[in-house]
This record gives sequence, structure tokens and C-alpha cells, in this order.
Amino acid sequence: MCGVFGIYGHPEAANLTYLGLHALQHRGQESAGIATSDGKQLALHRGMGQVIDVFQPRQMERLTGTNAIGHVRYSTAGGSLLRNAQPIAVDYAHGQIAIAHNGNLTNSLLLREQLEKSGSIFQSGSDTEVIVHLLAVSGQRTTEDRLADALSKVEGAFSLVCLTETKMLAARDRYGIRPLCIGRLKSGDRQFVVASEPTVFSLIEAEFVRDVEPGEIVVLSDEGLRSITPAPPIASKRCVFEYIYFARPDSTLDGVNVYEARKNFGRALARENRVEADVVVAVPDSGVPATIGFAEESGIRYEVGLVRSHYIGRTFIEPQQSIRHFGVRLKLSPVPEVFRDKRVIVVDDSIVRGTTSRKIVKMIRDAGAKEVHLRISSPPTRWPCYYGIDTPTRDELIASSHSVEAINEFVTSDSLGYLSHESMIESVLASASPREPSNVSSEHRLPMLKDEQGRHPFCDACFSGNYPIQYKTPPRSRQMRLLDV
Amino acid sequence: MCGVFGIYGHPEAANLTYLGLHALQHRGQESAGIATSDGKQLALHRGMGQVIDVFQPRQMERLTGTNAIGHVRYSTAGGSLLRNAQPIAVDYAHGQIAIAHNGNLTNSLLLREQLEKSGSIFQSGSDTEVIVHLLAVSGQRTTEDRLADALSKVEGAFSLVCLTETKMLAARDRYGIRPLCIGRLKSGDRQFVVASEPTVFSLIEAEFVRDVEPGEIVVLSDEGLRSITPAPPIASKRCVFEYIYFARPDSTLDGVNVYEARKNFGRALARENRVEADVVVAVPDSGVPATIGFAEESGIRYEVGLVRSHYIGRTFIEPQQSIRHFGVRLKLSPVPEVFRDKRVIVVDDSIVRGTTSRKIVKMIRDAGAKEVHLRISSPPTRWPCYYGIDTPTRDELIASSHSVEAINEFVTSDSLGYLSHESMIESVLASASPREPSNVSSEHRLPMLKDEQGRHPFCDACFSGNYPIQYKTPPRSRQMRLLDV
Amino acid sequence: MCGVFGIYGHPEAANLTYLGLHALQHRGQESAGIATSDGKQLALHRGMGQVIDVFQPRQMERLTGTNAIGHVRYSTAGGSLLRNAQPIAVDYAHGQIAIAHNGNLTNSLLLREQLEKSGSIFQSGSDTEVIVHLLAVSGQRTTEDRLADALSKVEGAFSLVCLTETKMLAARDRYGIRPLCIGRLKSGDRQFVVASEPTVFSLIEAEFVRDVEPGEIVVLSDEGLRSITPAPPIASKRCVFEYIYFARPDSTLDGVNVYEARKNFGRALARENRVEADVVVAVPDSGVPATIGFAEESGIRYEVGLVRSHYIGRTFIEPQQSIRHFGVRLKLSPVPEVFRDKRVIVVDDSIVRGTTSRKIVKMIRDAGAKEVHLRISSPPTRWPCYYGIDTPTRDELIASSHSVEAINEFVTSDSLGYLSHESMIESVLASASPREPSNVSSEHRLPMLKDEQGRHPFCDACFSGNYPIQYKTPPRSRQMRLLDV
Amino acid sequence: MCGVFGIYGHPEAANLTYLGLHALQHRGQESAGIATSDGKQLALHRGMGQVIDVFQPRQMERLTGTNAIGHVRYSTAGGSLLRNAQPIAVDYAHGQIAIAHNGNLTNSLLLREQLEKSGSIFQSGSDTEVIVHLLAVSGQRTTEDRLADALSKVEGAFSLVCLTETKMLAARDRYGIRPLCIGRLKSGDRQFVVASEPTVFSLIEAEFVRDVEPGEIVVLSDEGLRSITPAPPIASKRCVFEYIYFARPDSTLDGVNVYEARKNFGRALARENRVEADVVVAVPDSGVPATIGFAEESGIRYEVGLVRSHYIGRTFIEPQQSIRHFGVRLKLSPVPEVFRDKRVIVVDDSIVRGTTSRKIVKMIRDAGAKEVHLRISSPPTRWPCYYGIDTPTRDELIASSHSVEAINEFVTSDSLGYLSHESMIESVLASASPREPSNVSSEHRLPMLKDEQGRHPFCDACFSGNYPIQYKTPPRSRQMRLLDV
Repeated sequence: MCGVFGIYGHPEAANLTYLGLHALQHRGQESAGIATSDGKQLALHRGMGQVIDVFQPRQMERLTGTNAIGHVRYSTAGGSLLRNAQPIAVDYAHGQIAIAHNGNLTNSLLLREQLEKSGSIFQSGSDTEVIVHLLAVSGQRTTEDRLADALSKVEGAFSLVCLTETKMLAARDRYGIRPLCIGRLKSGDRQFVVASEPTVFSLIEAEFVRDVEPGEIVVLSDEGLRSITPAPPIASKRCVFEYIYFARPDSTLDGVNVYEARKNFGRALARENRVEADVVVAVPDSGVPATIGFAEESGIRYEVGLVRSHYIGRTFIEPQQSIRHFGVRLKLSPVPEVFRDKRVIVVDDSIVRGTTSRKIVKMIRDAGAKEVHLRISSPPTRWPCYYGIDTPTRDELIASSHSVEAINEFVTSDSLGYLSHESMIESVLASASPREPSNVSSEHRLPMLKDEQGRHPFCDACFSGNYPIQYKTPPRSRQMRLLDV
Repeated sequence: MCGVFGIYGHPEAANLTYLGLHALQHRGQESAGIATSDGKQLALHRGMGQVIDVFQPRQMERLTGTNAIGHVRYSTAGGSLLRNAQPIAVDYAHGQIAIAHNGNLTNSLLLREQLEKSGSIFQSGSDTEVIVHLLAVSGQRTTEDRLADALSKVEGAFSLVCLTETKMLAARDRYGIRPLCIGRLKSGDRQFVVASEPTVFSLIEAEFVRDVEPGEIVVLSDEGLRSITPAPPIASKRCVFEYIYFARPDSTLDGVNVYEARKNFGRALARENRVEADVVVAVPDSGVPATIGFAEESGIRYEVGLVRSHYIGRTFIEPQQSIRHFGVRLKLSPVPEVFRDKRVIVVDDSIVRGTTSRKIVKMIRDAGAKEVHLRISSPPTRWPCYYGIDTPTRDELIASSHSVEAINEFVTSDSLGYLSHESMIESVLASASPREPSNVSSEHRLPMLKDEQGRHPFCDACFSGNYPIQYKTPPRSRQMRLLDV
Repeated sequence: MCGVFGIYGHPEAANLTYLGLHALQHRGQESAGIATSDGKQLALHRGMGQVIDVFQPRQMERLTGTNAIGHVRYSTAGGSLLRNAQPIAVDYAHGQIAIAHNGNLTNSLLLREQLEKSGSIFQSGSDTEVIVHLLAVSGQRTTEDRLADALSKVEGAFSLVCLTETKMLAARDRYGIRPLCIGRLKSGDRQFVVASEPTVFSLIEAEFVRDVEPGEIVVLSDEGLRSITPAPPIASKRCVFEYIYFARPDSTLDGVNVYEARKNFGRALARENRVEADVVVAVPDSGVPATIGFAEESGIRYEVGLVRSHYIGRTFIEPQQSIRHFGVRLKLSPVPEVFRDKRVIVVDDSIVRGTTSRKIVKMIRDAGAKEVHLRISSPPTRWPCYYGIDTPTRDELIASSHSVEAINEFVTSDSLGYLSHESMIESVLASASPREPSNVSSEHRLPMLKDEQGRHPFCDACFSGNYPIQYKTPPRSRQMRLLDV
Repeated sequence: MCGVFGIYGHPEAANLTYLGLHALQHRGQESAGIATSDGKQLALHRGMGQVIDVFQPRQMERLTGTNAIGHVRYSTAGGSLLRNAQPIAVDYAHGQIAIAHNGNLTNSLLLREQLEKSGSIFQSGSDTEVIVHLLAVSGQRTTEDRLADALSKVEGAFSLVCLTETKMLAARDRYGIRPLCIGRLKSGDRQFVVASEPTVFSLIEAEFVRDVEPGEIVVLSDEGLRSITPAPPIASKRCVFEYIYFARPDSTLDGVNVYEARKNFGRALARENRVEADVVVAVPDSGVPATIGFAEESGIRYEVGLVRSHYIGRTFIEPQQSIRHFGVRLKLSPVPEVFRDKRVIVVDDSIVRGTTSRKIVKMIRDAGAKEVHLRISSPPTRWPCYYGIDTPTRDELIASSHSVEAINEFVTSDSLGYLSHESMIESVLASASPREPSNVSSEHRLPMLKDEQGRHPFCDACFSGNYPIQYKTPPRSRQMRLLDV
């Protein structure tokens, strides 16, 4: 999971991008980068760590120009490498280009193999470099045509922003798996912003225009904003997990307000999994909106029973021996007065391995609870994500091999209830506001509705195993094996 | 404001102290330090910044021994200096001693002047160094008697821990202004922990024993825990602001659970300041418990309308020019769906200068609210604190010179309501649980009750101007003027 | 100017490379890098600064494998960029390859333009990336054939080392402009070392085998050392400036001991530019050997009149205002007792802009010298180097526009004498030892002798303007304009 | 060993001190510090490492004022602690004072014990803190009288500078063991500089005035320079080792030019230890002047046979296993052409443990020498220094337990010769220039001559064991045992 951001046409493009990346920091803390263009030349700075660590005044001063793109990258299992930080920026036959990308290509190894056969060299393991190579070998005349050409060859999920000396481009895959939206700065008519989530817009005094549509390429240039849809979108497959966990609650993605959706999850969860209790608490912070919905629906009192530490986020030098593995206790601590002698419902957004839930249940019981009922505001997570969320393998997902009863036993809760798949889908759809046509129109719009066949517009592969795009492994699988140490 | 911590008798004393300081990080982010004792010799490490920045594995390995004390220090107006970091550790006639101190002495400049006249030199501006000098010039035979002697000379607020080669001492001033409590590790009978707040106890698998009583000195040594009360306590003057803002909601200080007290503030606030509204939201995170109490009492729906960024806490390189002064927007962002066309009540714990409240009101209004009613879960803050909380001068406290109406106008809310002084006191007292006598007894216990004359047991000087201890300025006032740069 | 290094077949390849780069540190202090191979995979670490700053134990531990190459890079006018640090390491169709390169290609922009036209992308401004691309597009079957193919297309000066999963290759351009030599570790029969200068050999307990010959590619693999000469060398054009200034005095390059050559320069200089004087001093450290030769030949007493600070080498935060521009005084300070009332000869290796010489002359005169005679152990430097030495432009070279008399006036010396061009050439040739045929033979050997036409085997372009290879600018000149900030 | 520096009356006092400390960097690389005074207040910055690492522009800007003192500290066996960095700066009864100190007190533990008994606390292990305490308990009225009072109580070697809000003081112990001298800046009449060595004077455009005399206190204030000699000096005991090794060759200390003295050592050494040889080389850099004197006297050719790396000086991450212990080879490398088949004399300034000499002899022999004769330009070092030079214990000094023959055997040289004690003394005295009375007079001057009894004016304890001042251990010896980690 990553976050992308772009500013077009503002004299403080790099500074606004810095703020924007900060607001998207929840989408990735491993590395951050900004590329700017002053109309003639690109400048780039990338580094490991959070935005406030990577950028110092010295670098900000040198990131000149009115156009900028930025990226925050999530820490993935493959190890954290500066080499994989984004944006990537290169010289090629048509000048310079920088790209920042959120998502995962499913045929990148295959493309990589083909490109290498034709003489390409690879300096990173990132999918982004594959896209850059495809751009470079495209015979098309304009950057937008080259990008369309390149994107016609890749499969998978992507929301990306490109920067050349004079233009900015934003593109979203044909399923619209990862979010991407457009805003306009209040300070000027031709000043645009592109971001993974609109949460950043109020911070930089911009207003939401519309989402980039699945399959669309948006071109920002001297001539204003232009929309291309090289290939019509097939069927919307927006990632439903963005609404459950990943996106910020103050974001509205493809017309669905995340906070509302989460409250709806909680309401449905309360209806589907009734239990007598004295108090309902959230696993903060992502579980809070669902918990409030749960409390409203059930009439059970909402309390702040688990306090989250503000001072977590960077690497914690874990003490040795006997005090190891305190993990969740460093992040959460219980308010005993809330739990003492109470029947407690605790709401979380999902269960991955089960180990964290088990610790939370134990923590609440140790704090004096008589009963601990765990409620999950999504269905059991059974399948890994291939489209940009860093989930563990199937083996590690407890729900892929355990029944709800077995999970309940493992996490030692008195009862365990998940949200049903149907309620999850209906809850998101119920939160969708009618999306007014924007004055910045696109050729194709995919509605947030079920189609005539009753098919919903979401990718729910992590729950259902129904992957909209298959993963292609090349004949002889090979990844970037070069190590930066 | 600072936090102190101590571990006696555990093989991983430094590691537990590291965890403890991390849990007390909300009490100070400027500097952190740990001193350990291996029975023969003290070791010390201090540094600027948060606990996870100050301590690396290299230092932790060298902080050997079974006894340790630690300190986190709040950033004060005087500038952030390593010189002022704590613990202070020295050689003196009786060996070595380290001290960590939370609070403010009111006669430290006077004592300093007297000590300098007798030939003492000062290498920092901290009150702690004054206490160390008083210890050093005391003619008493044991460390505890020297500490008692030293503390008999100082006036003001303090909760402190001392470490010698073989003992640990914990002491609290005669009014009990700053909190301090004792726990016992579950891993061993003679393993004790001392901390500003008990929130840390569950983290390190310790159980709460009791609070250190006002005026008490607790001595931890080979012989176990021993209590001394050199001078009987006068009258309890626990800091009421700890319950309002400073302490963690999961802490129970002197028998009062902070979360409960805050909910009570909110309930009383709802009763005292009724207004029609569609939704009530908190200024996170400190305002949340009062807001939940407010919502319960008023029946108005509680929502998460302001989302707090997790990624703030360290110095943020503020962008220049047009995007300056985004302050509160970096920390908080609104969920427009919660506010749109709504009558909103927003609950905060206090108003200091009024500028932040003004920005929050504007943010909520910009997000679509029809009305914004501001409710404060404490009375107007009119006087600076002399006992260890870093408040601005009287001039800067808006309530010292403005009526509630004038403040309402300044912050641009539709209405403004504060909690009454009486309700604040009653709310805390109502949250006090009967404190069972501990098996680790103290000579004197000051109850959390009003006395026969109806006087409450709190320092409320920041609201009332009734300072329990006067500030003594020396004939010729002089502070440490030496600058570390 | 840069330094390259390689170890083949030693269990501590990275550690030996670390030592080797340290010994080559005089050839570049801007950045350093090491790539290792464990038989299956390459690992890489690069960073800005000196070797001891770039490599920490953490990195060294992860640079595993028995084969390694390394690079130190000189600070060039173009700015110091991590992006340009070497080695470069990539994935390509045939696996992985890393390259470290010393020298400058004269047709790199042309090649770059051609490669970009065919779809190549460039992520740095370095010539090395051009070579990697040429390797990648070569249709040849083996790494050595692909390297031969690539090198047949490049023009200019290069001494380079390549590393694949299983092989190491070392190559030198057909003129032999930059040095490169081979050694054998005493610890094992199939353990080889390749380095820009042999000075490192004694440090790592290796013995000198022979120089890599102009046009030769040396292949190190399981089968031992194999030599290829894809195209016969044309005419030796070894860089004469290596002997004058750049190489370490303890190195022997292509059979010529640098120390001996420098002493010969000094002897000839004394013969050619006689002057009465009391004492002769060197500009340390590069001028010392020539000064000793000068003193021996002239019979004038040698003294250490200028003391060099050991503590220079990293960026010095220059004080402001009145004490700016102390430049040379920070590096050198005079021994007044050597100069007082004396007629002084001071010997330096070259004059670039003349400003440093002027400061040195003033410093000696201020220290009490009656006369200051400046002697330069090389001819006037009139032309920039295109083959890897970072010289200023022609405009900045004082000798390109000033007569010796005018330079003498500018530097304020009482007299100024340069070494004649003929004596320079003869001095180097006189220092050449007969190069015994090595048991590790090469197909072609270019002797260090004048040919039948009396042409000497050196590149002397910086003195004569006779460039052996012309610089090719592409139809539309373009450099890497991407900025890392 | 340390270096001290002070500037009085210059608007860029801190910047000049930065330059001065850089020039004194050879006297200590462990830590550095500067304290400045702006007439009202002192400012201080200290840090671990070399001057260019410790001071960044941010700190330099905040070190305001026209008076400044600075210190560089040598790495001692006791470990490197920021706590022990100098200057020390404190508040005391009379305002503020900062002190920087070079030397070692012999009764500091005794004084410390006495001070602690009276109630003093110690925050470092440095002698400097003892002096500050003595100042603080002095009943005298002026700073200079308090300093005189304090210094009357200490025994041992010291050259120190003090800074108050308005004055600067410089003092030297009664034996004049450590050097200290005064200069005047050319930029203003009342602008003075004080430094351990005058080498810095030309760098900052100052001229030498005179040495501070043994037992003298020099007071710099608005009234200009004033000299006090509270107690008349007893007998000059200048450290002879400064001339042999420690001081820079461009310094003149107490009228003796270091370079001249070293050449005289070499001349005498050549006369006393004749041997047939082809070439004489120095161990750079400290051995070079003596070697030149040796070559002149013996007529044997001087060559640069050992090349010193410029890139040593900071901590070197030593590689593991087989390539450990390369120590001297990293620092020095041989020029084989100088040694091959030659009879070699190598001159060094001293032998401490013998291990380095042994490696150098082996290195020269490995480089092809037929014979290696080691000559040492001082007598055998048999006793540790108690007055500020960081020598090992007696046990580790090879000459304390081995005859010259045994040492010769240990270092594997063909012959070994030391300078005789008498020649050492005569060589220094012969280099003494008559010291003209300065216009900035002192009350007492100790000449650099033998007295009527033929006693020379040097401390030669490291050679003779004749310690001018006895080391006092307190009844119960105790050092600062507090560890900074």
C-alpha cells in the first residue's frame, strides 16, 4: 500500500506536496519522495522513513518549480530499500519523466523478462520501473499516448502520477482498484491537485473535483485538464478494504464516505451478532467508527476502554529477554474502570493472524472484564491481496484455515462475530452519495451500484478469493535479487 | 510537566525503565534519561528527544544493574537544553546519587543564592540540582535522612526518585501536588516500581500497590520497602489539572480514575450548558472521555468528527509563505459528512490562548456545520501554574483578561460554555474510589474528601488564583543564564 | 578521477575491498561503494563521503561472498550525487552485473542519444550506465564477449572492473590512459586483486603480478585468470599526470615508480632552473619527492618549511566575514625559523589557477624569507583533461593565457621556473624498469619506450593540447539534467 | 594532552576560536568545546569528535560575544565522555565562569575528597571541576584573586584559560610544565589571543607577544592586559616531550623552535649512533625533522620511504578475522624502490610499547631492505607522565623493563640507537633563542638555561623518573565512578 500525490501549477508545489504526503502518511511510512519540475528540468529527492525525516529545509529549497509529484511507500516484506523508493525519475529519448505508483502489477515479472530480452536493464525491483521502460520503448509521439501504450500492456492495480518537464498525468487502472482523485486549489484556476485520498484537500485549501475514473488518464498542462480513456473500463472493482481499514475516515472515495461506511458496518454488525453486554469498546483508531455505529444500533454504552499511545510509529528498539513481545501493550493500554466486572464487546476491523486479537482479549480480561465478546466489522480475511496491500500469505491468515468457532477459541473470546459479506457490500453501497457530474468531465463513469446482474462494483478478493485479475508468473520466475545493504 | 519512573530489584531494570518512560511519554517529549545502579556504581544516559530516539541498543546494554530510575522532560519556554535533562547524577561525599524530579520548587532561586554564597556551583538551571546540593551539604548520616533534611528546606511541588549505589528513594511534597505511585512486579517479591502514573504497571506486569502519600519518603533497599514521613502532611492539594488534561485516561491517581473523572466533567458540562444540537464531537484525544459523558447525559449523538494524525509528535519543518500556520490542520482534519448542515457541539478540555479553539471552530464551520457550540470541560484557565505545568504567562491566558462572552466572540463559536468550578471539584470527588489500606502502609494518609470546613483537597490555582505555596523570589533575582547552544 | 578495486576468490572479499578503497582514497573522496557476489546474487552498498563514513559494520556484514568490486569517486564540478556513485549494479537478461569505472568516455553523449532512441532509460549521468546499457543490448553469449562488444563501441579513457554472479572482469582502454594492475593474494592460488594502483597490495598481503595491458580484458573465474585482447592496442598513451601528481608515490604504474619519477623531475628542474638560495622546501605532500631530487641535484639544503595539517579532508564550515578565505593557511602553516632572512626555493607539482601558489609565496615571505623562488616539477598546464581528471576549463588555467613571466608576476615570486616538456618525458622514461614478462601473460604488451619515430608513450594533452582521442558531441548535446537534491 | 585557546576583544571571537582549535587539533581529537561571553552572559557548546564535527553553523551563530575560550581534548584510557568535555561553565556566587584546562593535577583526588566533605558535588571526573569548586569557595573579591587562591591549592601541571562575563584569565603552573603563550591580533590594539601553541597565530593574523610565564596569571579586561604572579615560580620544568613529539614543528615554545630542536636531536643522534647505510628515512610526520638533521649530519641520503595516509584520524571500522591488526599499514605504506637492496636507517621520535616499531621494521624489510637500523630521537621512555600526556602504565613501556639490546631484538632491527639524555637536553637548549623582553611584561621570567648548579629547566620524568611534583593519593582513593554510557 502506498500513497501518491501531485500538484500542478502552484508556485509552492514542493511544499504543498510535502503537506500532502504528510496527510497520506498512514498509507506508507517506509520511504518518501518528491519530484518537481520547473518547466525545463526535474529535481528529485527520496529517502527512507517518514516525510518529516526525509525532507529537510535544504532539500525543500532545491525542489523548485510549479509542478510536483510525491509518494509514500509502505514497508513490505521484501525489505526496505532506498532503491525501491519512489518516484522513479529518468532521462529517456523524449526528455525526462518521473513516476509515482500505488498498486501492484500482476504481469510485471513477465514484462520484465520480455524487456530484459530486448536489452533493458533494471535498477530496482519496483513495478514502476517496468512502466517507465514500457514508456521508453513506446513509439508514440506524445507523453499521454506513450503512457496509454504502456498501460495497455500492464495488468494489475495501479493509481499513478507522472511528471514531465511541462505536464502532469494521472492514471487509474481499468478496474479502479486503488483510489485516486482530483481537486482544484482555491488559489488559482489552473492549479490542480491529485491524491490517493481527498483528505489532504482541506489542508492545502483545495476543493474536491471528482475521482479519476477507472481506465482514465488525466492530462494536466498549459491547456488545462484533459481526460482520455484509451480503453473503456470493464467493470468497477474498487478495493473494499480501503473502506474497512486502509483509508482515513475523513476521506470520501468514489462517492463513499469512509466514516459513514464504517458506521454502517458497525450497525449491521450489531444487528447480525447480538449479545447481551454492558459496554462496547473499539480497538483504536481504525475500529472507532464501526464501534460507534455498533453502540448506536445496539443501545449498548460506548466507552473508550483502550487508550492508544501517540508515540508509536517509528522503529521501537525492543527490549530483550523477559520483556519481549509486549507488542500490543506498547500501543494500547486498558482503562480498568471501564472493564471491571463488565460484559464487554470489543470491535475491531479485521483479524489477520489472530495473535493481536488474542492479546487484546487477554488485556481486557486482565483488566477485570467478566465477558469479552469480539466483533469484527468485516468478513473473515481468507485470501492474500495481489493488488497493493501488504497482507501475509494464505498460510498466515488464520481465517483461511480456521472456522469462526476455531478462531474464537484461539483468540480466547467468549464469542466472536464477523460482519456478513452481504452486509459489508450493502453497507458501502448505502453510504454512496449520488456522484454529481463534475464540470471537469470524463468520458466514462462507472457507477457505485450493482449492475443488472446484481454484481457489486468491488474487489473483495481478500474475503472471497474472486480475483478480478490473475497473477501471471513468467516461464522462469525471477525477481530482482540484487541486494542493497 | 515531566514523568518519573523507577525499578528496584529486577535484572532488566533499564529495559523496564525504557518501557515505563515510553508509557509516560505524554508527560514530556523534550528529553529522556535513565540512571542505573549495579550495587557498586551508577551509569547514566540522557539525550534530547523521545525515548525511542534517545536510547539505542548500545546504551541499553551498558545501563546494567537491577535498580534504575528514569525521567522524561517536557519542552519548556526556556529552550531545550541537554544540560537540563534528567536524571542528574553526581559524586559526593557519601558516594554517588542520581535524582529525577517532576515539579517546580518555589524557593529554588533563593536556595540557589544561599548555596552559591556558601560556595556551590551550578551546572544547570534545574531545580533538581538544588536538591542535590542540599543533600550534599546535609550533615545527616543516611541517604534517607539527608533527603528528608534537603526536602525540609525546599518549597513547592515535587515528586521525585533517587538512586544510590544500593537504595532507591521516592518522595512526594507535603501537599501531594504532583502524582506518584508504587507498584510491585509480579515476577518477584522484592521487585518494586515507582511511577508518575500507574498506566505503566500493566505494561511491565506489575500491580498497583498504593500512591506515595503527600510528605512521604519511601525507601527501597535490601530490607524491602520502608516508609518515612519526616513532617506530617498539611493539607492535600492534588493538582486538579492532571484529571482534566495531563494524565492518561487509563491512570488512577490518588484513588481517582482519570477516565471516570473526565466523563463526569462531560456529564456536568451537559447539564450546565444545554443547547439544541444534532451531534457532539470531541477535540481528540484528551477531549474524548468528557465528550462521551456529554453525549450520554445530553442524549445528543456522539460522532468522530475530527480525525487526529498519528504522525505528529516530532518537529515539523513548516513550509514557507502561503502555506504557513497550518498548525492545527496538520494535527486534526474534519470528517465533512459528520458536520454538513448540522448543529454541532464540540468539546475540548481547556482554552489557553484561544487561537487553537478559533481554528477548530473555523475548520468545523468550513466543513459544513450550521452551528458550532464550544463546550469546555473545565473552568476558565486564568492563572499560570507554578508547580510544574508549562502554562504561558497571565497575559497570554485569554480567560485572564476576557469574559466568556468575549472569548466566545474571539473563537467565533455560536455559543461557549465552561464547566463550573464547583462541578469540576464534585466530579473528581465523585470519581474517587475508597482507597483500601495497602499492606505496604504509610504513616499518614490524606483522604480524597472535603475536610470539615468544606475545603476540597485540590490545587486549583490555575482556575482560582489560590496558590497553596507562594513563589519566593530572591532579593536579587537571577536565573541560570548560561546558554548551551 | 576515481579509483577502482576488485577481489576475486577470498572469503573476506568485502573487507579487503574496504581496505583497498581506503588505500585508494586519494583518488576520490566524494562517494564510495562496494558490490559483492556470493556465487548466486550480488549485494551493493554505496554512499556519499569517505570510505570510513560510508561503510559501517552493519553493511559490511551483509556484503557477503568471495568476490567484490569497489569504487571511490572524486568530487566533480557537476555536484555530488548519490545517483552518480559507483558501482552501478543491475538486473538484465543474463542475470546481474555490477560495474565500477575510472575514466571518461568521449562519445558517451552520442551513445546515450542512440540508446535512448532505441528505448533505453537513464537513471544517472555517469558514463558507467552507458556501458551497462551497451552490455545489455549486446547479442553476445558470454559476459566477456558482451563486454568486448560494448567496449568496442565506446571511445575515451577507462579502467574498469565488472562483477557477475560468478566472474570478475577487468578492462583497460586501448591507449592505457588510466592505470590498472593485477595482484595475487598470498593466502591462496586463485585469489586475485585488481586495483587502480598497486599501493594497496602490501596492505592486504598481495603481490604485484602485472599491469592490465592497454586494450586487454582480464577474466577471473573458476578457471583462473584468462586474458583477451579483442582489438590490438594502437599506441600507448599513459596519463603522464598520474606520475606528476595523482598517483601515490609508493605506486609503480606500468613499470614506472612514481617516487623515482618525481625525484627525477626535481633533479631535472634543478638543472634547468638554477638560482642561488639558502634552502629548498616542498609544498607538501605531493611536492616532497621532487623537492628531495631538487635538493640532491642542487646541493641546496632541504627543509620542512611548510607543515601540513592532518585534520583536513572533510568539508570545513568556513567562518564568516573577516576571516574568510583562509584556505591554504588551514592546510599549510610555515615554520618561521626555516624562512627567516633566507633565500628560499619552494617546489610544487603544478600551477592550476595560480591563486594557491600566490598565497603560498605570500605566506613564505610573511614568515621572513628574503627571496622566494617558485619551481614547478611539470610544464605549464594549459589544457583541460577529457580523460578523467577534474581540471578546470581552459579559461581558468592561468598558463593557457599567461606567459611564465606573467605568471611569476601574478604569484609574486622572485622567479618562477617550470620543468621542460622534454625533461618531463625523459624523467619518466628514465624511471621505467624493464618489465619482466609475467607468468600471467597477456597477448599484447606496449613497452614504456619511445617508438621508432621517437614518439613517447604518454598522453600529455594537458601540457601540449595533443588529445589522442577527440571529444564527440552529439548533434543535439544533452546531459543528464535530472537533479537529485 | 589537550589544547586551550582564547580570544579577547574581537567581534568574531567564536569563529577565531574555531580556527584556533582546528590548528590545535593535533593536541586532542576526542572532544571540543567553545564558551563565549557577550559582556553579560556566557554561551557554551561542546561535543565529541573533531572540531569540524562538533561545530555546525547553527551553533557558531549562537556563540556570540567578543570573548571566547576553547578546548580540544585528547582521547584518554578512561573512555570518552561528553561529561568530561571542556570548557566547563557554571553559575556561582559571583556570576558565571567557564574554564578550559590542559594538564593534570596531582592532588585532585585529595582536593576532591576535601571538597566533597564540605558538601561539594561532582558531575564529571575532570580536574577542571576541582578548580571551579576551589574558585567558588574562595573568599576573595575579584576573579583573579579567587583564581590565585584556587591555584595556590592545586598541585600538578596546568595551563588554563578562564572566561567570565567581562574578563579572560590565562594561567600557567609554577613549573611551566605545559606551554601557553600570548599573541596580539593585528586588527586591534586590545585584541588578544592565548593559545597552547603559537602555531595558530599566523592563521588568524595575530603576532606572537610572549609566553605566559610559569606561575603567572594574565588578566585581560577593559583595562588591557595585566600580569600577576601570586607566588614566585620555583624552577622551570618545561615538558621536554613537547619538543620531541607533541608540539607542532612550526611552534616556538618558551623560546625554543620545535623544528630546530628536532633537527638538533637528529644531528646528535647521527653523531652518537653511527652506522653505515645507503639511505635514511623518517617515520612520518613527527620523525621527519630529526631525520633531516640526521641526514645532514651523517651525509647519508634522505628519502621518503614511508608514505602516510591523509585519510586517517577518525575511528576506523576494523575488518575482521584474517585482516585484523593492520594498524600501522593503514597509516603508513612503503615505497619499495627506496628500500630495495638498501641498508636503511629509519628514524622515529620514541618507542612506547615497541609493537609499532616492530611492524615498521618488518614493513621495511618486506619492501626489500637488506638492513634496517632504527634510531630514536629521544632517550628510552621508561616512566609514565603524570602531567597531562596520555602514556601507558610502566608495565606497558617496553624500555622500563628491557635493555636497548632486548628492545632491538624485540623490534627485529639490525641495530637500535637512542639519543642520549645529555644530548637531548643540550639540543633543546641550543635551539633556544634569547627571549627579548616583551612590551607586555611579566614580573618573573624563568630563563631557558641551566642554573648555577647545572640543573636544566625541563621536566624529563618520562625518561629519568625524576618527577618534579609527587602524585598525591588520598587516604581512601576514589575516582569519579559514574558512567555516562
